[in-house]
Amino acid sequence: MHGEIITIGNELISGRTPDLNSRYAAGRLTASGLNVIRITSVGDDEKVAADALKRASTSSQFVIVTGGLGSTDDDMTCKIAADALDRPLSLDHQMLRKIRDYVEARGIEMTPPFEKMAFMPEGARMIHPKGAVCGFSVVEKDIRFYFLPGVPDQMRYIMDAFVLPELLSLFESPPVMRHRLLKLYGLDEPRIADMFSELLRTSGDVVFGFYPQFPENHITISLRGKDEPAVKAALDRAEHDIMALVGPYVFAAGDQEMEEVVGLLLSHGRKTLSVAESCTGGLIGHRLTNVPGSSTYFQGGVVSYSNQSKADILQVDPKTLEQHGAVSAETVEEMAQGVRNRLKSDLGLAVTGIAGPEGGTSEKPVGTVYIGLDSADGTVSRRYRFQGQRKQVKLNTSTMALDWVRRRLNGDTLLPGI
Amino acid sequence: MHGEIITIGNELISGRTPDLNSRYAAGRLTASGLNVIRITSVGDDEKVAADALKRASTSSQFVIVTGGLGSTDDDMTCKIAADALDRPLSLDHQMLRKIRDYVEARGIEMTPPFEKMAFMPEGARMIHPKGAVCGFSVVEKDIRFYFLPGVPDQMRYIMDAFVLPELLSLFESPPVMRHRLLKLYGLDEPRIADMFSELLRTSGDVVFGFYPQFPENHITISLRGKDEPAVKAALDRAEHDIMALVGPYVFAAGDQEMEEVVGLLLSHGRKTLSVAESCTGGLIGHRLTNVPGSSTYFQGGVVSYSNQSKADILQVDPKTLEQHGAVSAETVEEMAQGVRNRLKSDLGLAVTGIAGPEGGTSEKPVGTVYIGLDSADGTVSRRYRFQGQRKQVKLNTSTMALDWVRRRLNGDTLLPGI
Repeated sequence: MHGEIITIGNELISGRTPDLNSRYAAGRLTASGLNVIRITSVGDDEKVAADALKRASTSSQFVIVTGGLGSTDDDMTCKIAADALDRPLSLDHQMLRKIRDYVEARGIEMTPPFEKMAFMPEGARMIHPKGAVCGFSVVEKDIRFYFLPGVPDQMRYIMDAFVLPELLSLFESPPVMRHRLLKLYGLDEPRIADMFSELLRTSGDVVFGFYPQFPENHITISLRGKDEPAVKAALDRAEHDIMALVGPYVFAAGDQEMEEVVGLLLSHGRKTLSVAESCTGGLIGHRLTNVPGSSTYFQGGVVSYSNQSKADILQVDPKTLEQHGAVSAETVEEMAQGVRNRLKSDLGLAVTGIAGPEGGTSEKPVGTVYIGLDSADGTVSRRYRFQGQRKQVKLNTSTMALDWVRRRLNGDTLLPGI
Repeated sequence: MHGEIITIGNELISGRTPDLNSRYAAGRLTASGLNVIRITSVGDDEKVAADALKRASTSSQFVIVTGGLGSTDDDMTCKIAADALDRPLSLDHQMLRKIRDYVEARGIEMTPPFEKMAFMPEGARMIHPKGAVCGFSVVEKDIRFYFLPGVPDQMRYIMDAFVLPELLSLFESPPVMRHRLLKLYGLDEPRIADMFSELLRTSGDVVFGFYPQFPENHITISLRGKDEPAVKAALDRAEHDIMALVGPYVFAAGDQEMEEVVGLLLSHGRKTLSVAESCTGGLIGHRLTNVPGSSTYFQGGVVSYSNQSKADILQVDPKTLEQHGAVSAETVEEMAQGVRNRLKSDLGLAVTGIAGPEGGTSEKPVGTVYIGLDSADGTVSRRYRFQGQRKQVKLNTSTMALDWVRRRLNGDTLLPGI
């Protein structure tokens, strides 16, 4: 069973407003095992909107239409639906009564714009689960059209309370649709494509999706079937194959962020962390503290943007700064040691680098970053070269630094390169 | 001249990812005076995608297509375009060379997935304004098709640097469409709606747009006309009226971020800033250092997530912490003084608060935040109560703290409330 979504409104095709309704409807339908094949947004334009409706009626079994049900002049979905479905507009007395009640309860005058709202395509069935929220549905040649308000809260309410239950009830045995997400860091897209080419050929009905989400790559595996245990077994198999292929790069299974994974590992291991940040300017601390409860393992940090702060607060030896520079293995290691001593944490993490666009040299071009980690086991550091603009260098540096902590706490000694 | 946008990707029709590309393209085209009549999103499905392309070719003069240009198996826009436009796929040697250069520069092996990216519909013209970012265009029966990458940064870059200029050059006498943006902080949406109701009635043809962008509010004014000076004069008038109404809350005219405005003020005033962050965890430093060149005025900061770090590094008196708590006016003032002394800056900014979801009390509920600012003129602080989830409290706190610096450097003594 597949269908489509049509959203109507000038604010959508002018880019003024994000199309929250189509995304919500698509997400809810997909999660319920119903296929969405197309989303179309059109303006308050009778011809283009009618065209979208007519086209949907030739390719879909259900059509969700949102917007254009209000009282103003640009709300003409009822008229468009009547034209496209070739049914006259007629006054719905139940609807008129409902509008009259609503208007009277508020002491407003019943004006023609309100009356207009009670004219619907002949044969339409009102959807009015509560209050002032209304929509209607029309069945035409076995295709179900649902016309919903464009106000997101109202649309969501009707979608969940009425449309989804009705669509699902049309199945005798609803299909099982299961979906898993794996997040990778440290491999680029072409390399992933290459590594997965064999697996894709042998993975049967399991559908793979690859989504770069800078600097991460997300992989989804999905399967639709009649039988929950069989679907689960096939997805388990696919996940197992993926882990055998790229396991060390998979930092999360599911919706978790890198900082949540790191937080859980720190909590479980009863370890504390402190951070000395130069080029990231506070981003690592910001990400760590996005996680509720992070104060139990995150001791804090120092944003040592100037040489003076590296020496004063982190006790980096001024000779180190002079001989090797602020962006060097020697400096990052002393920063990691300094912040760990200063904040008395189990792990001290440090980054220093050149985020650009200025400040690069031929020896240390923009994107050169050193990461260091200090613990009771000693200090390690490594040089990286990240591509991209300033914000991308900062983001990539922060993710790599957090991934170091993840790998260390996982007992993975491999320090990844990109 | 009108056209449409087609975005391709399973992540769009499953609701997993917001369709940022269509919104961006629609907004930029509309602001340039080009009409968008339809936005269509389809999955990685050859038939449905080809259908969308064919349909566009019967109703539009230009078509922007995004997504499906990568190296993985689900990237098949080139094939779909070749089928829909009835042109064979052929190897583009220029593209192949470009890919080879890119791959070799990174020391990666040239594998079939990379080679696949060099096959394009016959007659296609490459768009490769810089680096690894590529797209292509095809002209078919006077209709211009632009195929752009799905990665938002890349898509935006090509859209602005190539597609818009080319489309605009096709007009003999382009209409004048001018657009301005004002960014406000410190007023909520209903209050703005109320304050602007009179101005909206008297503003003639100038089109106002109101876009909440948490925690900011953005106002656009646009006008289309034949005559540049007249359009400019009308927009000047509208901008003047807005400034008279809400001037102190307008922190930027144009695309500038709050941290850029603060950075410029610090640069011009030759002042330096340091930051002590508790509940924001590094976010203020992160935002300040997103601005290139920020090292000239940003000295660094301390993320004092634990009481110990507040006492040790920032020299907050342990008695203050004990008597008034970590979230108090007394503590935030000592934090601001401590970081300013420590990092020898002109201004010392500090925040402490309860970001939630845990840690609130009846006296200091979640969202309670203190902001403090220390300078040669003395120390000021104030208590706020921010609404929302943890990340929203952090973001709002960081913007309010930066707005304090902006107002101080502007000579505005008003400290805003929300």
